[in-house]
Amino acid sequence: MKLSVLGEFGLIDRIRNISGRNTSSALIGIGDDAAVLKHSSSHVMLVTTDLLLEDVHFERSYTDYYSLGWKSAAVNLSDIAAMGGTPRFCLTALGIPGYVTAEHVLDFYRGFNTLLNNHKTALVGGDTCSSPDGLFVSVTAIGEAKSSLVVTRKGARPGDSIFVTGSLGDSAAGLEILKKRRGHGAGGKGKNAERLVEKHLRPVPRVAEGRAIALSRCATAMIDISDGLSSDLFHICEQSRVGADIIADRIPLSSMLKNREGKLTKPVLDYALSGGEDYELLFTVPPARVKKVRSLDFPVTEIGTIKAGKRLSLVDSFGKRSPLRKSGHDHFRTPAGTHEGRLRTPRGERRG
Amino acid sequence: MKLSVLGEFGLIDRIRNISGRNTSSALIGIGDDAAVLKHSSSHVMLVTTDLLLEDVHFERSYTDYYSLGWKSAAVNLSDIAAMGGTPRFCLTALGIPGYVTAEHVLDFYRGFNTLLNNHKTALVGGDTCSSPDGLFVSVTAIGEAKSSLVVTRKGARPGDSIFVTGSLGDSAAGLEILKKRRGHGAGGKGKNAERLVEKHLRPVPRVAEGRAIALSRCATAMIDISDGLSSDLFHICEQSRVGADIIADRIPLSSMLKNREGKLTKPVLDYALSGGEDYELLFTVPPARVKKVRSLDFPVTEIGTIKAGKRLSLVDSFGKRSPLRKSGHDHFRTPAGTHEGRLRTPRGERRG
Repeated sequence: MKLSVLGEFGLIDRIRNISGRNTSSALIGIGDDAAVLKHSSSHVMLVTTDLLLEDVHFERSYTDYYSLGWKSAAVNLSDIAAMGGTPRFCLTALGIPGYVTAEHVLDFYRGFNTLLNNHKTALVGGDTCSSPDGLFVSVTAIGEAKSSLVVTRKGARPGDSIFVTGSLGDSAAGLEILKKRRGHGAGGKGKNAERLVEKHLRPVPRVAEGRAIALSRCATAMIDISDGLSSDLFHICEQSRVGADIIADRIPLSSMLKNREGKLTKPVLDYALSGGEDYELLFTVPPARVKKVRSLDFPVTEIGTIKAGKRLSLVDSFGKRSPLRKSGHDHFRTPAGTHEGRLRTPRGERRG
Repeated sequence: MKLSVLGEFGLIDRIRNISGRNTSSALIGIGDDAAVLKHSSSHVMLVTTDLLLEDVHFERSYTDYYSLGWKSAAVNLSDIAAMGGTPRFCLTALGIPGYVTAEHVLDFYRGFNTLLNNHKTALVGGDTCSSPDGLFVSVTAIGEAKSSLVVTRKGARPGDSIFVTGSLGDSAAGLEILKKRRGHGAGGKGKNAERLVEKHLRPVPRVAEGRAIALSRCATAMIDISDGLSSDLFHICEQSRVGADIIADRIPLSSMLKNREGKLTKPVLDYALSGGEDYELLFTVPPARVKKVRSLDFPVTEIGTIKAGKRLSLVDSFGKRSPLRKSGHDHFRTPAGTHEGRLRTPRGERRG
């Protein structure tokens, strides 16, 4: 059977069946941003692994090695952040093709370790190997959290408010600029374009924010936005068995992104809804906690409400509802023939 | 600079320099079979990661998916065993090319989980992604050990006896048989050949043995034999700043291997010395503990002695010494242009 027939989530279910017999010692195994493993009577260990492949997740034509190292670390730390944890350690596995020089590898590690240093996380091991074909990076991040503070994707309840940190869509717009520049040398100039590009190449994982949200005990469910708001909200709703209304006008867009309205190929809201790779945190908050969440010392925006049922809707400024789609992120079923599936969730829309 | 100029160990040193600033929270970071991380006041966590790449570590022409899954788990658990630890959890990252079907992936996980079940270890997460080129597997294994019982590569002292579990060279002979069969359809028949092939495709990590050796407090240093006896002994000697004499006649060879003398392309001892992928344990024992090691309830063989100085020698049956060579396992410098380096040590000779 082709993987495209079974589909990503079918495959993950079957792998879970195969491995089901011996996962009892894990508090949470396959299925969330990170696995949750018993550490001590009061603390758990969080573990996650993420792949970045050349020509699937990045292209050398627009990614420098420093940024690639930075981002490889960031996407993994973002998963730890999404559980409310503190990242502690990372391991890397690199498949290195012949065209990669020693300087490239060291630049990769400079970027990787700069991001790690920013979050007091240590590189403790790894493996490197020649790759007969493209470059790839596999990173494992290990974090920890107080058991009582871990936030999964499962706890959202009807009536909860839906919040998001930062702003959405910048990374996808930055990627479009990078690709246009490569194509015909002009895809956007000026400070705004540079900042959008930077948000794509060197995203900042919301580690302190994730921890603060967990500590505040405000969040009933949390995920990082790697595939795009609609896809990642879908994961929370699916695992919590709820629906959601998102108010289109409330989705936070940066001034950089809004300034590019008309210069991009799609309406700016599309980048926020399904662009992906924002690495902001999406979380749900019960009514009694909304006030407390607003007092956190970083920007959060209330963008909608969790509903009973299964429907995910986008509500426009006239109050009109339209279905919010997962935008086809079963990566084993994309028409391009590329597939990507995580033993937890898909990540990073394959654009272009 | 080309990686082949800097060399594997040069690269690892530079990566260590880049990451040095933030590794203080790890008890042992880059440089041993596994990283050693503080877990509790009495226990440490052991973490290791290993890559297996198509056409570098395995070829589809002679490896089935079940065996590939088995071996991917085994080589990682072997690293935990080499520290005297107990494996607990694994994560996988798979790069999957278009020719791999859902059944192949599930067969991979059946093999992977059978090995994991044998050692009460749980698959707790991972990532899968389409690979534009070959198949690759990256596995992270997490184990634990009592802090006081961890055995590193560093403690060997002059006068210590050198021991090895099981027998050496079977895996490399099995690989030769597999490659011959593929080439002209006849590379060895019968039960012996099958058992050698099995030892290559589905090695058994010495998990219980590693733990028993650690518990007995007999070992001053330990490593698993992944690159071959001479290479892995070299790692112990280098990190312990000692030399060694190995008595050629004492190297344990299986009857299966001895029976193939003359039918293989090289003398059988060569497979034991530099074949690699045996995943047996090599460890050093002070004189006062040798008797205790002999009372362990699994086969161990004393094959030589740790010496002062830097020389590694092979002593033949006439008492003649010849230098024991690392057999050129700087994988960034192999003539084939393939390179492999670990942030701990090279692994798996690239044969053929």
